[in-house]
Amino acid sequence: MEQYSPHLDVVFQALADPTRRAVLGRLGEGPASISVLARPFAMALPSFMKHIRLLEGSGLIRTHKQGRVRTCAIERQPFAAAEGWLSAQRALWEARTDRLEQFVTATVQNPGEPQ
Amino acid sequence: MEQYSPHLDVVFQALADPTRRAVLGRLGEGPASISVLARPFAMALPSFMKHIRLLEGSGLIRTHKQGRVRTCAIERQPFAAAEGWLSAQRALWEARTDRLEQFVTATVQNPGEPQ
Repeated sequence: MEQYSPHLDVVFQALADPTRRAVLGRLGEGPASISVLARPFAMALPSFMKHIRLLEGSGLIRTHKQGRVRTCAIERQPFAAAEGWLSAQRALWEARTDRLEQFVTATVQNPGEPQ
Repeated sequence: MEQYSPHLDVVFQALADPTRRAVLGRLGEGPASISVLARPFAMALPSFMKHIRLLEGSGLIRTHKQGRVRTCAIERQPFAAAEGWLSAQRALWEARTDRLEQFVTATVQNPGEPQ
């Protein structure tokens, strides 16, 4: 399993903040400009832009400037990488639970035999 | 959607480090003592313990001391919370893609009608 991916470091880091998660939630409904995205937050624009740059650096969003308007959109691949890592962990536990169940079943059915 | 959960902040923060992800990967195979967990890392024990405490604080692991041995084990619920947040995001995009497809289909079938 790819525990050492520096990409996962920056993706999980980007997700570890409520403002950034809220921006991603909004972008899940469709692309939006920086000014639309910033509106719900009581935050100075330079502070908000730090969040946008961190999201862009993680690959979770892409931005595109046309004239004076910068539009942001979601990028699905890094979400898939994060989900993939989490579901691989779950697969490990489930495999272990299955082995434990097989052991217990075998022990109950053949209590005298060594396993 | 719960963007503001402080719990998700600490869970994603805990996942944003390769040592911590590797520890979680090892614990996915079953509980282990601190000394077994620390073995693969070229790291002083106090530094390693910071990672363990951060993981315990996030709820991703629990630890239990018996005599001089502290054993760590995975806790599944915070993984489920992180996976739940990511899959809720995906549900948003998929709903949007479905609406776009319905719009395009309706436009192709009835090109003259206003949508």
